[in-house]
Order: sequence, then C-alpha cells, then structure tokens
Amino acid sequence: MNLLYAQAGGTTAVINASAAAAIAAAREYGLGEGGRIGKVLAARYGILGVLAESFVDCGEIDLEALAATPGGLFGSCRFNMPREDEAPALYARLFDVLAAHDIGGLLYNGGNGSLAVVAELSAAARQRGYPLVSVGIPKTIDNDIEGCDCCPGFGSAAKYLATSMREVSRDLASMSTRKGRIFVMETMGRNVGWLAAATALAGRDPDDAPHIILFPEVPFDEVALLAKAERVLTRLGYCAITVAEGIRRADGSPVRARTYGNDMHLRFGGAGEEIALLVSGVLGCHRHYAAPDYLQRSAAHWVSAIDHVQAQAVARAAVSYALEGRDGMVATIRRLSDTPYRWDIVPVAAVAVADLERRVPREFITDDGMQMSEAGRRYLAPLVVGERAVNCADGLPVHGSQALPMVARKLEQYTGFAADLVYARPQPPSAESRLDADASAGL
Amino acid sequence: MNLLYAQAGGTTAVINASAAAAIAAAREYGLGEGGRIGKVLAARYGILGVLAESFVDCGEIDLEALAATPGGLFGSCRFNMPREDEAPALYARLFDVLAAHDIGGLLYNGGNGSLAVVAELSAAARQRGYPLVSVGIPKTIDNDIEGCDCCPGFGSAAKYLATSMREVSRDLASMSTRKGRIFVMETMGRNVGWLAAATALAGRDPDDAPHIILFPEVPFDEVALLAKAERVLTRLGYCAITVAEGIRRADGSPVRARTYGNDMHLRFGGAGEEIALLVSGVLGCHRHYAAPDYLQRSAAHWVSAIDHVQAQAVARAAVSYALEGRDGMVATIRRLSDTPYRWDIVPVAAVAVADLERRVPREFITDDGMQMSEAGRRYLAPLVVGERAVNCADGLPVHGSQALPMVARKLEQYTGFAADLVYARPQPPSAESRLDADASAGL
Repeated sequence: MNLLYAQAGGTTAVINASAAAAIAAAREYGLGEGGRIGKVLAARYGILGVLAESFVDCGEIDLEALAATPGGLFGSCRFNMPREDEAPALYARLFDVLAAHDIGGLLYNGGNGSLAVVAELSAAARQRGYPLVSVGIPKTIDNDIEGCDCCPGFGSAAKYLATSMREVSRDLASMSTRKGRIFVMETMGRNVGWLAAATALAGRDPDDAPHIILFPEVPFDEVALLAKAERVLTRLGYCAITVAEGIRRADGSPVRARTYGNDMHLRFGGAGEEIALLVSGVLGCHRHYAAPDYLQRSAAHWVSAIDHVQAQAVARAAVSYALEGRDGMVATIRRLSDTPYRWDIVPVAAVAVADLERRVPREFITDDGMQMSEAGRRYLAPLVVGERAVNCADGLPVHGSQALPMVARKLEQYTGFAADLVYARPQPPSAESRLDADASAGL
Repeated sequence: MNLLYAQAGGTTAVINASAAAAIAAAREYGLGEGGRIGKVLAARYGILGVLAESFVDCGEIDLEALAATPGGLFGSCRFNMPREDEAPALYARLFDVLAAHDIGGLLYNGGNGSLAVVAELSAAARQRGYPLVSVGIPKTIDNDIEGCDCCPGFGSAAKYLATSMREVSRDLASMSTRKGRIFVMETMGRNVGWLAAATALAGRDPDDAPHIILFPEVPFDEVALLAKAERVLTRLGYCAITVAEGIRRADGSPVRARTYGNDMHLRFGGAGEEIALLVSGVLGCHRHYAAPDYLQRSAAHWVSAIDHVQAQAVARAAVSYALEGRDGMVATIRRLSDTPYRWDIVPVAAVAVADLERRVPREFITDDGMQMSEAGRRYLAPLVVGERAVNCADGLPVHGSQALPMVARKLEQYTGFAADLVYARPQPPSAESRLDADASAGL
C-alpha cells in the first residue's frame, strides 16, 4: 500500500517537522519492493489535493531541510468538508483517487476540524469496504484539541510570545515615567486563550510583565481592567497587557471584531488596539500596541525544542498506527508528570474529539481573571523548554526550498462539488514548486 | 576624573552591549587609585538622571549579563534639552552635579537628538571652562544618524524583521489561493524607511516576499500599489507587503496617523492596517496584518552578531576619545568595503550631524519605488550577518536582572525647569532596582 500524508488548517513552526518525521518513519519501515510501504505521497493543499489528484512523491525529499522550515511545504487548506450524505460525489471522487494511487493509509495533520475529516473518511471507507486506515496527527498553535495534553505547534508559539513579552518588558522598564506607558500585545486565539496565557511565562513576580492577561474564557470587565492597570502604572510606571484577539464582553459580543463589505464572516484582530486605546484614553498614559499575527506561528528561528520533538513523535506514532490498522485514531500527547516533565503518545478516537474546542480551564486562571494561576504555570512551563540550532546563511535562516516531484495523474480532472476551491491555486502555487509548474498544472 | 555613561531615546536590542563595552573599556584603563579613571558611573534615565543626581556605580555590574539584555538597563529618556540661553539654571544644575561627582567624561548613547545634547554640553563646558569631554555613542534602530554608515541597533532590528518576513512567506505560500491572500507587516520608521527596507533581505527573487515595500521616502501611489499587488496575487496567490509606519501621500500627509484627545502630538501606527484594508477591499482578497512594534527593537534572542560587535566597538572607541580629550565627537562606523565587509570607527563632530536625519537614498530603491535596488541590498546585506548564543533558563532568555548600586547624593533636590520630568519616575522605577528603592528615592 501507499501512504498519503496531508497538511490542513493554519500552519505552525513545526508542522513540517511532523511531515519530515512521518516520511522518515515510513522510510524506516521500508519503501518499495520488500518494504512494508510502497510510496509515501503528500497531498498538495490537504484534502483538496486528494480531490485534485495532486500528489508529491516524498521518496527523495530532503527531510533535514524540511524539518527546519516553517509553513506547510506541501500546502495546506481550510475546507469545511461536507458529510458523505451531503456530497456523495465528492466522497466517490476521493475514494477513486485513493484507489487509483493504491493508498491504504492516510495521515492527516491538522486541528479540530481536520480530525473530523479523519473520522468522516474512516467511516466512509468502512462503509464501502475500502481498505483505508485514517490517522490524525495533531497540530495547532491554538492548543485546543480535546484529549491532547498539548498540541504540536503551541509550544513554539508560546515560547515566541513569552520571549517577546519578556524582551519588551526590558524596553518598557527603561523608559517608565510617572505619566505611565502601557504596552499591549495581541495574540491569536478566537475562542481560546492558550496563546495569551503562554505569555505569563515571561515573568515570575507580580511586578514582571505581563501584568494583565485578558482571556476569551473570562468575560471582559472594563472596570476591573482599568483598576488593575492603574495600580500597576502607579507602582511601576508601565504596564504590559496581553490580549487574546477573541476577548468578549459578558453578553458574548467580541470586544473588537468586524465584518467588511459583502463578506459577513466575522474577522477578529484589533482587540489589542481597542484595549490600548481604552486604557490610555482613560488613564492618560502613553501606549504602544503590537500584533505579531502570523509571526507567532511561523517563528522557526525560535522554536521550542520539546515542541519540535513532540511534533515528530506524534507523526512517527501515526505511521505506526497506520501500519497497525488503528483506523480513525489520533496520536495524542499524554502528560505523565509536570516535574520532571514526562509524556508519551497514546491513540484517541478522532470521532470522540473532532470539532470540540478545549478552553483554558478556570483553575488555570487567577481569581481576578487576569493572570495565570500556579496550576496554569505548571501546565505551561515544560512546553517551551529547549532551543534548536538554526541553519543560517548570510544572517538569515535557510529554509527547505526544494522542488516537489509530482506524481503523474491517472484520472480525469475533478469537476464536482467545490471544484472551484480544489483548483483555486494560481500558477505557480509556490516558489518551491516553480520547477514543477507543468506537473502541478491545474493546482 | 570619573566617567559618566548615559542612555537616551528609544532603546535597542544591543544598547546594553554598548554600555557593557564602555564599562569594560574603562575598567581596562584602570579604575580607582593608580588607574586613569576614578569611577564609572551611569545616569539613570539619561540626562534626567544627571539633573536628579541619580547615578549607578558600575564598578561591580555583571557585564556579560548586561550585554545580553534588551532595553536600557540604566533607564533612558526622551527629553528635548533646551539650549543654554533658554534654560541657564538647568545648565548650572547639570554642571553643579558633574562637578560634585568629579565627572570629567560624559558618554552619551543615543540617536540624532542625543548627539545634539553632546554638542550642547560640549559648548557649555568650554564656555564655562569646565573640564568635560563629551562623546557620543550612536544608537538607533532607525539607522538615520548622518555621517554613520550604519547605526548600532539597526542591524539586529533588520535581522529580526527580515527573518520574520521570510518565515511568514512560508506560511503564506502554504495557503495560497486564487482569491489571494495579502500579508502586510508594518515597521517602525516615521520619516525614514531603513527598517522597511531591511525586509528586502528576506527574498532574492521577484517571487520571494516581500513583493512590495512602501517607504516614507517615496510618495504613496495607490494606483501603482494596487496594480503591483494584483500582478503578484495573480501569479502567486499571495502577496507580502512591508509598510513603514510613516508613509506619506504626495502632499506630505501621513497615510495613517492620528491625534488623540487633547494630545495634539501626531501618533503613527496603523499604516499597515490601512494598506491591508485598501488592498483587500479593492482586490477582494484575504488579508492579515502584523505590527511587531517594540518587538522589533528588543528581540535580543535574535540579534545580528555584527551589530552586537559594532555596538561594543563604538562604545570602546568613545571611552578612548574621552581619555584623549576628543571633546564633542561621536564614534561613528565607516564602511571600507561591502564584500568582504570591512569597517572601522572614526570620530565625527557631533555638532555636524546632530538633529539631521539620513533617509534611504533614492538609488537604494528600485525605479518603481516599491523594492530595494541591488545597491540597496549590497548596503544592507552585511549588517545582519552572524548569530549569537542565547543564555536560556526554562526555555526563555535570561536577562541581566541585577541590583543597581546607587551613588550617595551630594546636592539638594533639583527644583528647576523640567523638575516634574526629572522626578517623573514612580517607585520602584524598575524591577531591577527594587533592592535600591531607598537609594533611588525621588527618581
């Protein structure tokens, strides 16, 4: 059988480390004649690449370079996959493609929504008697996959944000004034505050930044925020605040989110600026506001070594699950102890955790709702530990910018549901595949 | 004589490396009896610390920890120093304090405005026959000091921004779509585009990010921007744009800057969001927008090694100038060749370069005004080279959080011009000096 790997959802600084580890593990099982696996393929742009029959042959991919590169080298997608009863032709196409390429194992590397795809494909394969083992490899900087103690990608984003907050606090301290200076950093996290929470690691003492963290899990309390900010400003002359982009008022409305033009999809982003304007306006202090945005999920120059190791470990376990026939499972991380930090990988049924959303538990947040508790710090601390050497040339990180050898197509072009999305990639789809523009034509 | 070091203006990731090198050089000349220097003192919060007579005795400061810490450990200030004829009592106080502490050399570490202070103090000392040698140590992430080939602090900010842009480009490439995705990163730089320019190093090819750079030096051309963004989106499915916060329209008005409330001071920030909204609105693509803000000037975990070396070299040279009596000079970096990169330190008169502003020359920018030229790249390339090991504990950088031994006061409290500013620091002024809250009372 051939093994198919695919990436889905927002990428992380270590998702390519998972890709590299999956391919390495498959190579160790033996590829080609005499091995347990025929080929390792990677779909371009996740499940859309399956529909498009757009596969990379990973036999010769340089794994060391791949493991150090942010983003998703094979391409990722955001695609709300319909259920089979809603789009039977789409599923028929998927299995036609899988059959045409002798694919017996699917490794889907994504977050909550992607695990639903694993569960759906697992059920659909069983129903039609197709011999497919679908396995999930968890990944999300949001850290919100239920049943997974921590999600690969989170530790690196956490390390980046906590480091940034600590560094900025030195800048703030050097220019504190009686008028006061607030600094707000907005983190990603629409519904969950894990990334905002992670900045708590920047300090150890109540005087250390961040002095205030605003979580989506805690209804926004303007009066309490202003009172605490004023106390900190009076004491220190500056105050550092972390704001999750998805903070909400008690009635559930976002503190800042907008729709634009004809697009009624609610866009987050700007909550940090809103808080900076509010606090500086009321308290009459200076303000600065940072929004690291994509920087926080692609900072491969500063990954957490433990996160990088775990990203590889879940991928290796997933390959084992695929070969052991553990269909519909996700390779999750289980914590065995905080200190020393011990963990292992255990399978969890994708159907049991798909589409759920793990929020920061209340006991991880202090009573005032604006800081991490000791229990929360104990949870976070091990996830950012360790640094990795960065391969640089001319002072900048070298990424795995390699050609992607495409597999020849065997079927007609797909014309069904979502075909517009499936073929929605311009030419060339990325700088890496420029050499293969012909092979990937159509994607 | 005693030597006084002070920090002024916005801090950088390497200004403390200058501080550490100045103190180290002074120690090498010999401190105390038998040495050429009595004590090395550091003023808290720049020139305000001189007025307040708030001095740290640097004899026992841990220099290794100091050199790795972002922000300005001794405190910095923004203070538009009046000329002596405007505020004679202020100058009388400054020289009373200098005399009371036997200060014969002043090392002022700052940007354009700070070099004006060097020139003023030099003139004022000569006029009253006070034996002071004032020397400037350049520092600014803005890279806009005239007469200095590059400014310590810039190379590290440049490396951070270029690295971030390169990393994000991998994320963008993995999710390109036909609808298109734009990413805008806003850099600091009110009047000069050096920081925006630096992101050009992220790519080598026209397909590489950033595809567009908007400089304050080039009048903003909306039509040209939209046309280029559309071409890039059509080709790649994504487009990365760097926007300097201070970009202006042809009539000189900022693309985005606001005044708030009673404060009529123009605040920049938001130009990147403005561009993101404009392009996505007109071209109908997805958009994301990052504003690294203070992160770009305090990212000590990712400094340019050559910048760190130069920050130390200018400080060491400044100590020599002070001992050689080269009053009113700035220790500037002179470029001898691009490849291999060769440079040395030369003295330039502060009065000749103070308050000027070096902009990105037109020949460093391509004809279309939206990218760096080959000449510009040749200038930038050597400034980001080299990495430094980062001392971490528990996965985060360790900073020099040390007690600051304060020198006993000898004079009455200052009550003159700007006394409110001088004593505008709350208690404790920073976490580092918590142990010395009594000694630094009043500051």
